[in-house]
Amino acid sequence: MEESVVVGYDEDKEQVLKRLRRIEGQVRGLHRMVEEDTYCIDVLTQVSAATKALQAVALQLLDDHLAHCVVDAAREGGENAELKIKEASDAIARLVRS
Amino acid sequence: MEESVVVGYDEDKEQVLKRLRRIEGQVRGLHRMVEEDTYCIDVLTQVSAATKALQAVALQLLDDHLAHCVVDAAREGGENAELKIKEASDAIARLVRS
Amino acid sequence: MEESVVVGYDEDKEQVLKRLRRIEGQVRGLHRMVEEDTYCIDVLTQVSAATKALQAVALQLLDDHLAHCVVDAAREGGENAELKIKEASDAIARLVRS
Amino acid sequence: MEESVVVGYDEDKEQVLKRLRRIEGQVRGLHRMVEEDTYCIDVLTQVSAATKALQAVALQLLDDHLAHCVVDAAREGGENAELKIKEASDAIARLVRS
Repeated sequence: MEESVVVGYDEDKEQVLKRLRRIEGQVRGLHRMVEEDTYCIDVLTQVSAATKALQAVALQLLDDHLAHCVVDAAREGGENAELKIKEASDAIARLVRS
Repeated sequence: MEESVVVGYDEDKEQVLKRLRRIEGQVRGLHRMVEEDTYCIDVLTQVSAATKALQAVALQLLDDHLAHCVVDAAREGGENAELKIKEASDAIARLVRS
Repeated sequence: MEESVVVGYDEDKEQVLKRLRRIEGQVRGLHRMVEEDTYCIDVLTQVSAATKALQAVALQLLDDHLAHCVVDAAREGGENAELKIKEASDAIARLVRS
Repeated sequence: MEESVVVGYDEDKEQVLKRLRRIEGQVRGLHRMVEEDTYCIDVLTQVSAATKALQAVALQLLDDHLAHCVVDAAREGGENAELKIKEASDAIARLVRS
């Protein structure tokens, strides 16, 4: 039987899913605001709120990845540890630059 | 009859709505990835993509707001012009800091 | 005699110069921290502070540009107004993405 | 004799110092541009460039911190590992939000 891989965010999975459902609702809300010709600045305020919510999900996933996947790989050592660090660094760079 | 206000993004409305529907789909896709225990880094990559898409919507709304609402108010002059500039500056600050 | 152009930030010039001198000092301080093998996280904390200070200068310059250059051009109308709006929008996009 | 602590960026120290000196020069250049009443948009372009350069220094320091300090602590295990992860996560959050 294939050994199922436990993801870093396993313990926080329900919270992440809940946050994503809320963000989906925020984006649907933006769609409604634009349909109803809501004033640009009010729409922009909600776009910033949805962006921050997405950012919070990213930071949570990254915390969990560091605390589990990177730490486990560091303990194993060898190439896998270096790969995990490189992956984490690239993901952080994408986040900082998005 | 109440004079209907034309929003700055009026000419780009369909494109903004289309972008928002796509972002909604991206967030639903993120939800599915997490449900299926997708590797953290792959989920993070998609979160960065959704964040950039939201940012592009914000920049488009801001462009339209400057080109229409701020320019019109500037031509009218007086307090309304100053208010519009202040509103635009605050929206830009929120965007830069989100 | 050549008509001297008044820049948008003219009224805030001394404050902007003061802020830039402080940021220069912050960057010199970072250099000293690294020379003295200061712990990475403490250096990173100061890098974030210097980044925020630079961001504040950018937002101030942008406010002034909107309130003066863009408003003046809007009142003149014509191609110059469109150019100023496009320039401002591009500068905002660079800021949001940096 | 006090055991001297080797910082995570030790191997990249000269490169980090060089980058910081260049950023210091960029900020001095900004000061000169403002003194000489350079057009706002041109100053803003250079502010974005200096911001990106600072960001690159931060990402390099973070990479080194993960690859050395966090990995070493992970191997030791225990509270120190958790502390290092928490520190790294907080530093990443500050970077993403600056």
